[in-house]
Amino acid sequence: MSKLHLSKGSTQPTFPDDQKLRLYSMRFCPFAQRAHLVLDAKNIPYHTAFINLTEKPEWFTKVSALSKVPALEIPESGDVLIESLIIADYLDEKYPQNPLHSKNPLEKARDRILIERFNGFTAPFARIIYNHKKDGAPGAIHEIVTILDLFEEELKKRGAKFFGGSKPGMLDYMIWPWCERTDMLKYMLGDKYELDKVRFSELIKWKEEMKKDKAVKEHYISAEDHYKFISLRLANTPDYDFLAPTAAKKIRLS
Amino acid sequence: MSKLHLSKGSTQPTFPDDQKLRLYSMRFCPFAQRAHLVLDAKNIPYHTAFINLTEKPEWFTKVSALSKVPALEIPESGDVLIESLIIADYLDEKYPQNPLHSKNPLEKARDRILIERFNGFTAPFARIIYNHKKDGAPGAIHEIVTILDLFEEELKKRGAKFFGGSKPGMLDYMIWPWCERTDMLKYMLGDKYELDKVRFSELIKWKEEMKKDKAVKEHYISAEDHYKFISLRLANTPDYDFLAPTAAKKIRLS
Repeated sequence: MSKLHLSKGSTQPTFPDDQKLRLYSMRFCPFAQRAHLVLDAKNIPYHTAFINLTEKPEWFTKVSALSKVPALEIPESGDVLIESLIIADYLDEKYPQNPLHSKNPLEKARDRILIERFNGFTAPFARIIYNHKKDGAPGAIHEIVTILDLFEEELKKRGAKFFGGSKPGMLDYMIWPWCERTDMLKYMLGDKYELDKVRFSELIKWKEEMKKDKAVKEHYISAEDHYKFISLRLANTPDYDFLAPTAAKKIRLS
Repeated sequence: MSKLHLSKGSTQPTFPDDQKLRLYSMRFCPFAQRAHLVLDAKNIPYHTAFINLTEKPEWFTKVSALSKVPALEIPESGDVLIESLIIADYLDEKYPQNPLHSKNPLEKARDRILIERFNGFTAPFARIIYNHKKDGAPGAIHEIVTILDLFEEELKKRGAKFFGGSKPGMLDYMIWPWCERTDMLKYMLGDKYELDKVRFSELIKWKEEMKKDKAVKEHYISAEDHYKFISLRLANTPDYDFLAPTAAKKIRLS
């Protein structure tokens, strides 16, 4: 199996001299997935280099100031942008096609606040993933459900297929990576941790619609595979490359 | 002395029916200060209600979903925006006068990344303030200085009076509240914690220029008073109102 994620001892990749954007990513990172989703939803051509985050390449600190993914390199200026939300907003402002944020400042602010509040999901979700064999992360499920109630209510209020209306917008894409991973909970905690079909009926419909979206499909990983990655990582035997053949189609390094 | 900050048992303020924005704030909160700075830098008229964060009014949870300040109420739509950076960006997008963010998406992204990286200052700074009598917050000064080096370097590179150029921009205003408070360190830790005059020469010049800015002056609190507020709070005898006469000029409640 080919080695997809670059790690310690690797040489820095050279990209074709074509002025395309360069995304430093990790195949299972939800934050990096945000950048992929925006790039693909807007049909912006780019190169990807995948980074092994357990054994980071020595050269990577020189590329990304804080050695973080996602990092977006702009060949034109030499800038390397970090922070998934800043990268997403930059792309939406710079490339006018398929605008993801509303042009109405108030609607945009509302969505940005919801993206921020979604941290009330991602934080306890991470606690469950990393602690479920220790203490079960008490209270975490309650925190998650509180946020899901908020989003279910919001989707009802908007009365549309997506938070963005008739197509996914920035809010849809920014929360998607964690929604893709929610089914991991049943592998970790048991079947009763499936979304309640009545309480979250709108979100469940939304999730099915999202799965049909071209950009979402491009990066989709099944809950089984997400769980496999996490399990191997928790066992201190991480394997970044077990999806390599699928992921490799995204990489076009010289 | 008049009671400025509304607390438990207070009645919800009624604002004049004039469609002006309404800011829920706390006089010593650096995040709320960000919202004041943007409103005043752009000359946007607004009302202020100050909230006692130790004894929050019962009605405040209904106003601000997470009971946080700053919260910006928009009478026109009934929205209440939270998160200082989202409020700041909303105001800059909605009100075209004196634009604070660059219209160039890349320049804007660079500044937003620096605002994000400045969290590397605010977090250890808070640790020092709240722990200096316990363990002195080991490592915190080193973290702070690393960030100050980054900003000193950036200001040199830009070769301008402010990060925003010839006038303060969004980056200047977003980091200012903590820069105003840096002199507290010498009250807490002793004289050697003044900024090194050679190493941080650009930042020291910048700070003096910022102090002359109209919006900065409007909310300026001396390091002595910041320290007094923190000391009383740490002693469990908080006094939100000791600057009330100065602060009261900002409040025009009916």
